[in-house]
Amino acid sequence: MAALGVRCSRRLLPLLGAPRPLHTSPGNPSARVAVVLSGCGVYDGTEIHEASAILVHLSRQGAEVKMFAPDIPQMHVIDHSKGQPSQENRNVLVESARLARGDVTALSKLSAKDHDAVIFPGGFGAAKNLSSFAVDGESCSVHSEVERVLQDFRKAEKPIGLCCIAPVLAAKVIPGVEVTVGQEEEQGGKWPYCGTTKAIQAMGGKHSAKEVHEVHVDKSHKVVTTPAFMGQAPLHTIFDGIGSMVSNVLRLTGK
Amino acid sequence: MAALGVRCSRRLLPLLGAPRPLHTSPGNPSARVAVVLSGCGVYDGTEIHEASAILVHLSRQGAEVKMFAPDIPQMHVIDHSKGQPSQENRNVLVESARLARGDVTALSKLSAKDHDAVIFPGGFGAAKNLSSFAVDGESCSVHSEVERVLQDFRKAEKPIGLCCIAPVLAAKVIPGVEVTVGQEEEQGGKWPYCGTTKAIQAMGGKHSAKEVHEVHVDKSHKVVTTPAFMGQAPLHTIFDGIGSMVSNVLRLTGK
Repeated sequence: MAALGVRCSRRLLPLLGAPRPLHTSPGNPSARVAVVLSGCGVYDGTEIHEASAILVHLSRQGAEVKMFAPDIPQMHVIDHSKGQPSQENRNVLVESARLARGDVTALSKLSAKDHDAVIFPGGFGAAKNLSSFAVDGESCSVHSEVERVLQDFRKAEKPIGLCCIAPVLAAKVIPGVEVTVGQEEEQGGKWPYCGTTKAIQAMGGKHSAKEVHEVHVDKSHKVVTTPAFMGQAPLHTIFDGIGSMVSNVLRLTGK
Repeated sequence: MAALGVRCSRRLLPLLGAPRPLHTSPGNPSARVAVVLSGCGVYDGTEIHEASAILVHLSRQGAEVKMFAPDIPQMHVIDHSKGQPSQENRNVLVESARLARGDVTALSKLSAKDHDAVIFPGGFGAAKNLSSFAVDGESCSVHSEVERVLQDFRKAEKPIGLCCIAPVLAAKVIPGVEVTVGQEEEQGGKWPYCGTTKAIQAMGGKHSAKEVHEVHVDKSHKVVTTPAFMGQAPLHTIFDGIGSMVSNVLRLTGK
């Protein structure tokens, strides 16, 4: 009658204090991939289903995964049941730990030399916590640790994967990078965030129009992007597009 | 320069107020599946990756999905970065909306007559918010709306899927049901919650030992279960076990 506090609630917390890893290594040399989170929930943090899809695909392809998030306050907290800000304060690292089942490290400790690739899921957290894009558009700033990480992986010629709105981070930090955030026209509501494509161009990036199941690979910058929830599509199509992003990132590691 | 508040943060909130559905119907008659959430985060709510896997598989198999959660306070809030309770108060429905991208309905409105099946992901939320199992073990109570929903689907002979710790809900409410929560021995830490199997038997249920990639189908009660995060396994194996649970639930709907 062990664990889960059966008949003994006091046994619950010691168990909770020991995070159970999400992934196992296959034993062979495998790519070491950092995943950078920005909270937990599409409207003020990481888009949950994008992050989960990235982790499932990395697991299936045998990558070693370590998750990171900045230890900073969220820009704000959105009551997701109403789509309105609440009066709470939450911390990006603490909320990201929900996605990581406790096993998340401060972004300041992420070094490109310890990893073969880095992947950024989307969600408004990328545009609110990792940058100010949601408020400032093309004149946004990118969080200093995020900027450092992107530049370090770029200099080391290690691949960078991003999805949904997160490609704006690459467009701001890596001059001339080519990314996709989907289609450039709204198409009757199918691409409600299509204005982002113009912001990417205004920041000096190039945009390649893609569908949700597709990716764009910028081979010269080793940047792989996919639209994910930027487009209206069934969840399994988003899952598959992210799978293609993960495969392309892993291929570019050469492992 | 529309959406995402590019150059115009005031345009952000109207967009957030309009949830974008996670799923589309294939146009043919498809199973209508209710998914019952219990918060957002393994230690005080729904296990995020289990819920996301359920939704990906339901999407791929063409089901129509509607998500529900009880509109009640969480038992407590766990700081997932520390594995310790914090002093916050959060609401189960509001936090579940993070997983549902806003589109979640109060559990009191879930009627078996509107759905062909119901699925409960796990996470401690099932044992803390949907029941008192985490504290009271086999002498737990099940939230009245959860009990009503399980009984209504049972009476209507419509299938019920549960994973991880959630099968304890069925064991408490459906006399003689046979479920799996994994293996019955700890196996060197691989099954840290194996004591749950004895609690299931103490509540009058039967237990069938299964691995993470497997399911148990109780055909007479139309209850399908899989261990998910009860066992230590790579995330993609948990994803596949959940896929098998979803397939078996949909098969039992006869649609």
